[in-house]
Amino acid sequence: MKKFVYDFMEGSMDLKPLLGGKGANLAEMTRIGLPVPSGFTVTTEACNEYYVKNTVLWDELKQEIFQHLSYLEESSGKRFGDIHNPLLVSVRSGSVFSMPGMMDTILNLGLNDESVEGLAKVTNNERFAYDSYRRFIQMFGDVVLHIGKYKFDTVLEKRKQEKQVENDIDLTSEDLKFLTDEFKKIIEREVKHKFPQDVKQQLLMAIEAVFKSWNNPRAKVYRRINDIPDHLGTAVTIQMMVFGNMGETSGTGVAFTRNPSNGEKKLFGEFLMNAQGEDVVAGIRTPQEIQALNEKMPDAYNKFIELCELLEKHYMDMQDIEFTIERGELYILQTRNGKRTTNAAINIAVDMVDEGLISKKEAIMRVDPQQLDQLLHPTFDEEDLKNAEVITRGLPASSGASYGKIYFSPEDVVKANSSGEKAILVRHETSPEDIEGMVASVGILTARGGMTSHAAVVARGMGKCCVAGAGEVKIDEASRIFKVRDQVFHEGDYISLNGNTGDVYSGEIKTENPQLTGNFQIFMGWADQYRRLKIRTNADTPRDTKQALEFGAEGIGLCRTEHMFFDDTRIPVVRRMILSRTIEQRKKALDLLLPMQRQDFKEIFEAMGEKPVTIRLLDPPLHEFLPHEEEDIRALAKGMEISYQQIKEVVSDLKEFNPMLGHRGCRLAITYPEIYQMQVQAIIEAAVELKKEKGLEVVPEIMVPLVGELKELQYVKDIITKTVDEIIEDSGVDIKYLVGTMIEVPRAAITADEIAKDAEFFSFGTNDLTQMTYGFSRDDAGAFIKEYVDKNILEKDPFQRIDRDGVGKLMEIAVDLGKKTRADLKIGICGEHGGEPNSVEFCHMLNLDYVSCSPYRVPIARLAAAQAAINNKDKLK
Amino acid sequence: MKKFVYDFMEGSMDLKPLLGGKGANLAEMTRIGLPVPSGFTVTTEACNEYYVKNTVLWDELKQEIFQHLSYLEESSGKRFGDIHNPLLVSVRSGSVFSMPGMMDTILNLGLNDESVEGLAKVTNNERFAYDSYRRFIQMFGDVVLHIGKYKFDTVLEKRKQEKQVENDIDLTSEDLKFLTDEFKKIIEREVKHKFPQDVKQQLLMAIEAVFKSWNNPRAKVYRRINDIPDHLGTAVTIQMMVFGNMGETSGTGVAFTRNPSNGEKKLFGEFLMNAQGEDVVAGIRTPQEIQALNEKMPDAYNKFIELCELLEKHYMDMQDIEFTIERGELYILQTRNGKRTTNAAINIAVDMVDEGLISKKEAIMRVDPQQLDQLLHPTFDEEDLKNAEVITRGLPASSGASYGKIYFSPEDVVKANSSGEKAILVRHETSPEDIEGMVASVGILTARGGMTSHAAVVARGMGKCCVAGAGEVKIDEASRIFKVRDQVFHEGDYISLNGNTGDVYSGEIKTENPQLTGNFQIFMGWADQYRRLKIRTNADTPRDTKQALEFGAEGIGLCRTEHMFFDDTRIPVVRRMILSRTIEQRKKALDLLLPMQRQDFKEIFEAMGEKPVTIRLLDPPLHEFLPHEEEDIRALAKGMEISYQQIKEVVSDLKEFNPMLGHRGCRLAITYPEIYQMQVQAIIEAAVELKKEKGLEVVPEIMVPLVGELKELQYVKDIITKTVDEIIEDSGVDIKYLVGTMIEVPRAAITADEIAKDAEFFSFGTNDLTQMTYGFSRDDAGAFIKEYVDKNILEKDPFQRIDRDGVGKLMEIAVDLGKKTRADLKIGICGEHGGEPNSVEFCHMLNLDYVSCSPYRVPIARLAAAQAAINNKDKLK
Repeated sequence: MKKFVYDFMEGSMDLKPLLGGKGANLAEMTRIGLPVPSGFTVTTEACNEYYVKNTVLWDELKQEIFQHLSYLEESSGKRFGDIHNPLLVSVRSGSVFSMPGMMDTILNLGLNDESVEGLAKVTNNERFAYDSYRRFIQMFGDVVLHIGKYKFDTVLEKRKQEKQVENDIDLTSEDLKFLTDEFKKIIEREVKHKFPQDVKQQLLMAIEAVFKSWNNPRAKVYRRINDIPDHLGTAVTIQMMVFGNMGETSGTGVAFTRNPSNGEKKLFGEFLMNAQGEDVVAGIRTPQEIQALNEKMPDAYNKFIELCELLEKHYMDMQDIEFTIERGELYILQTRNGKRTTNAAINIAVDMVDEGLISKKEAIMRVDPQQLDQLLHPTFDEEDLKNAEVITRGLPASSGASYGKIYFSPEDVVKANSSGEKAILVRHETSPEDIEGMVASVGILTARGGMTSHAAVVARGMGKCCVAGAGEVKIDEASRIFKVRDQVFHEGDYISLNGNTGDVYSGEIKTENPQLTGNFQIFMGWADQYRRLKIRTNADTPRDTKQALEFGAEGIGLCRTEHMFFDDTRIPVVRRMILSRTIEQRKKALDLLLPMQRQDFKEIFEAMGEKPVTIRLLDPPLHEFLPHEEEDIRALAKGMEISYQQIKEVVSDLKEFNPMLGHRGCRLAITYPEIYQMQVQAIIEAAVELKKEKGLEVVPEIMVPLVGELKELQYVKDIITKTVDEIIEDSGVDIKYLVGTMIEVPRAAITADEIAKDAEFFSFGTNDLTQMTYGFSRDDAGAFIKEYVDKNILEKDPFQRIDRDGVGKLMEIAVDLGKKTRADLKIGICGEHGGEPNSVEFCHMLNLDYVSCSPYRVPIARLAAAQAAINNKDKLK
Repeated sequence: MKKFVYDFMEGSMDLKPLLGGKGANLAEMTRIGLPVPSGFTVTTEACNEYYVKNTVLWDELKQEIFQHLSYLEESSGKRFGDIHNPLLVSVRSGSVFSMPGMMDTILNLGLNDESVEGLAKVTNNERFAYDSYRRFIQMFGDVVLHIGKYKFDTVLEKRKQEKQVENDIDLTSEDLKFLTDEFKKIIEREVKHKFPQDVKQQLLMAIEAVFKSWNNPRAKVYRRINDIPDHLGTAVTIQMMVFGNMGETSGTGVAFTRNPSNGEKKLFGEFLMNAQGEDVVAGIRTPQEIQALNEKMPDAYNKFIELCELLEKHYMDMQDIEFTIERGELYILQTRNGKRTTNAAINIAVDMVDEGLISKKEAIMRVDPQQLDQLLHPTFDEEDLKNAEVITRGLPASSGASYGKIYFSPEDVVKANSSGEKAILVRHETSPEDIEGMVASVGILTARGGMTSHAAVVARGMGKCCVAGAGEVKIDEASRIFKVRDQVFHEGDYISLNGNTGDVYSGEIKTENPQLTGNFQIFMGWADQYRRLKIRTNADTPRDTKQALEFGAEGIGLCRTEHMFFDDTRIPVVRRMILSRTIEQRKKALDLLLPMQRQDFKEIFEAMGEKPVTIRLLDPPLHEFLPHEEEDIRALAKGMEISYQQIKEVVSDLKEFNPMLGHRGCRLAITYPEIYQMQVQAIIEAAVELKKEKGLEVVPEIMVPLVGELKELQYVKDIITKTVDEIIEDSGVDIKYLVGTMIEVPRAAITADEIAKDAEFFSFGTNDLTQMTYGFSRDDAGAFIKEYVDKNILEKDPFQRIDRDGVGKLMEIAVDLGKKTRADLKIGICGEHGGEPNSVEFCHMLNLDYVSCSPYRVPIARLAAAQAAINNKDKLK
């Protein structure tokens, strides 16, 4: 006969498909010798058989269950339904995959009008016994008999009103007895038979309810959406209840095997004597530090210490343990890997390697790369935070925490900053013109835009805190206020931003600066040993470059030349260039820009030493450099001695419906080759000068953006090589350089074999590639992407994590086609995804050469790359 | 020894790689017995050998050339360089592929100070002889010796000034003798040796010049861009000159074997006695009808008639023939398939099938499908056109010709139309709000936007003439004028538009209405026999539907529901729906729209009978339905009794940076499911009513736009099926229907296997797919696409012709993946490309089920589909 029921002692983690996650876990803990309250599990196969048998529990199964129940009575010395020392159990569903929508836990099953008295006796606490009983009836009514919970709550509330008490805890045992009777009446009224006093019947009904919950509509929808097969079925786990409130030799507590806040190797936790877990939660009594248990119950304490070591050795990680002591007997209710701060995570990982508990490889896997962000940015003061009021939430666009006075224009921020104020820039959205205000601010809040909007991208690049797309923030620039629902904030009011969560607070919350410990450096060093991917950075300025080097960047994967154009001293020249009517006028303006760009490149090259630097030629549409407000146009006209009408005409000519898909990238060079000519000249002359002056051998990688067709690249490459050849000839200094292209237009991916004929490297621009592959504008998608994620249509915002099935497929095609044409093609990624761990792993799997990300994400990428290499088990050292 | 020179009599079309296009063609004509002036061709292999030998003509080659030259002297009875009856030749380059940038033709080679006298004698025309001589020297100087042409022109101009004459023709033979001497002096001065009097040297120098032109920079660039291998080389063809001006038994003329204007089977052409071709061009003497030659030279005439028949039989097509009679001897200089009007093309094709000259299959291949457009739209009166002034040129966005008074707002157009005026709507760009003005206009001119801009798409749908993206047109709406450079046009001024060419004219040019002959119907019937693709139409109204049926549509491939929303009576309700703050308000507005949409669908279904109708659910972003100008918003607020502020907020909330990639398509349904619910209800209820009332079995195909991910489609499909099921149950009438999706987002193509799990049909939206695959906004690309085509980076605007390598590759992937999941998946295309012949062929090759295009393109698609089937030789009947 097939075995449908397993005692915890018979199982192990390997039987998860049969016992479900919970059952297997309890069996595993039992197997390694933990004093887990005993119990048994009805298998998933029993669930399937139940459906085969048209939802009837068959006799053999019932017998097997009762057999195990009697083992349980035997080992516990308690009896099911007993009036003196009743055995009570919990009943839980347990599928292989955790699945919301299925039946919740039922606690204290086995209580009836008799055994409740037993419970009162053994706990010496009548109130507790009846509270447990009325809760059990309510839960049973709800999840087994499907009686609306509110029906019970109504009666409860009524009683509280009658007794004029506010909290459940203020009800007496008389009240609870009364409620118990009332609840039983509700059940009788609703299902036309009495609440079952037969505890075995209670158990069978609960088991059936679990089986049935496998096929309730919510569970079915969840399975369909998550591709979980219907045939898996659910197991049912029945476990003995234990009580920490059976007098002064009983108690309950929670402990971490190490300090979850800083990682110190010292037991950390608290306990309460003669109490149940919920007493800790209720906060009526103050728990004691775990170490105090040693005085009260040294045996239990020592046993616990021993178990902690056992658990750390077994799970090879810091554990978060719930325990109960029932009449001197220690029970472990639950153990799991403990949550911890990043700081603690690193310290614990490094310590455990020192202790020989885990290998370096395992240590590396212990820290969530995303978490590293916490270490690199300021955080809020814990105490201040407790009293802070969240006024709204936007997108966590750039990490860190900051507080400051609000200003609505970049100019005002700059002014505030120069008079020593901390200023937060609040905008509908930012645009390149706002750069100086962004630099001068301590944080940025926008009402629109997504995770890759201008504000988000620029802030991340600067390592500056930013909350973007906070849709509830209604800005009225004219009145210099913003509203959130009914709250009004004026210019100069303080707010605080949490860039890690997107929370916006009113008032100031102090911040603490990050400190990178020695363990951090050790840990990152280990990560570097394991990764195959190189890590570069996206940096446009010498300052960014230096920051990135400190964080371990091995080169620049993306230097955006346009950001250099926005500098105060340059923008007038850039505008003059754009407003030129003839090629001669344009060249004259470009001649003025040349020495400035050359100096920029020289500084960046010098900062990077001989590490590779990829420079992207001008990308954004020209209208981004022009003002759009009437007032600003008039000012510009006056300043440049060009007629208002003329500027107005150019602005209107350059206006685009969909600038994202407009006249930008290499398309500019096809219309105005002289712009790229100037930029290439600046790049190569910078390299020539550095070679002459310092003997530095710079090999610039010149990157052409937005290529979708080989001939575009050829046209631009012709311009580049001609320009370079002339400089080399004129200067007599030979400079090696590469010409490559972004792969950011779907067509480039699809025709990568063609494009690789002339591209010496590819760099995936996954921001734009995602925009075009999905047809999502990253600036507009905020309006619906949240809904998509909420409704489970998208698992994750594809601008945050590479969409492997769509965008990733195109990347794969591009890599395959590209390498078919050019086996040694160098391939990297410089989109925002380059600093997101899951995406970094995907890049590793695609066998890219490097990922490039903003400076503050370099450590994240380093660790993610190491984890990817380990997870994908190739080229391990 | 290898043979490097072929007499015309030795060659044929098969030797094209050796003789080049021109040489092979002349050999072929000689082979079939035409009296072509004799000559010979130096092969492409000789050219390659010339480069192997470091660009030196070797003796064996020279001997071979002179050998053939002496054969030529023999057969012609003339001698090279002779003072009495000189042999003159033309020298031409001839590569396998026609190639701009290579050497032009040199005429009259063999003239020197002696033979010029001979030419004067035999033509009895000294002026002609010296004119030929000075032209030859100039041409030789230019193309062989690379002396700037302007140097000769300067001398010529100076002489004309001195003699106070305006035209070359007014110079006397003395003048020409003088110029001959001057030209020789220029050459001596420039190249430091005299103009070669040795005619053999002239010949060798010309041959070398042709060889060298193979490797000049322009030719090299052209080859690189067009993937023409460098090793092909060029041939050189040397042909005897003949003269039609050797007295009254000589002459020259041009003739078509049938009438190129209407196709009538009657020789059509003209000739001049004692004249050269250029005399005809100069227009000094009036040529006679070809039939008059019968009286003057019956032998030559009869011979010519005979040759015409021979040529038609050989080339199996109407021929355009150039001939010269030299002293009674008829020579054919050139014959080619004659250009003809569409009308003539169809009549000739049908006649030739009747005559047994060609098969139906061949007849179908004779008409350019694109040309059919001419037949379906008005054209300009030929006479009026001659005096018309083109003021600018835009994109030929929608076929036809029209004239009318200009107006700058839709309202003014409507007013003008109702008072009986023909009005042309002139706009920066049109938007959906302009629809009524577009309907009331006779033509549309826009300053911006491309071939698939709103104006273009809507105009084509209406079969209305439209010129789009005329960038030179600067509109000043406030002053009600537009400027083109310095010309100013005021409201009410007449202009005329040619939608086939994009030309814009000032003033009125009368138009003629199209007439479809019986042959058109016969011809299209033949096409229908051969095609495999079904042809559907894009139609949103019963009127469009009827027009398309007349043109042979077999169903509707795209019915856009949003156009129905813009109707005057509906837009207020639509706006109320959009401005709703609660779902209840929105549903109330939708309830008002329901009966209107239901009626629309009913009428369209009824017009189509039981032919398939694909209805696309709402696609555009909601802001398209709202006003954006302050004034309009205020008016709306007043009309709807909603606060100005509230509307303003919604408008600003809905504003998008890149609406193309924004909140539209099925994304709307994910946020507002009730909109699609209403539309589906309208569709199905319409079908139910028609079944009840008329017994019509409509099977609606419900199409979900902008799907990029299976779960999007699943979400929407759930809404659809639930809605339909309810109606079917309530009404008791069973309606079959299909749910499918557009494939217009690259991600949909890449994940088509997934999407086909829930899509019962695919319809390629190649407009959007092209936009996203290239990253080109169709509304903005006008600014650079022309440059792309001009610079040969794009062979063709991808919005006009499917880009097979990129967009086409994605389509192929989608078809393959889609059919892998669902073998019987129905696949069509409903983008603008569905009516473009090259794209239709591609759809045939992809084995799509149908193409769908605007009503006026249905005949084009029918013919293109037939040609595709024939070209790709499958399923021929």
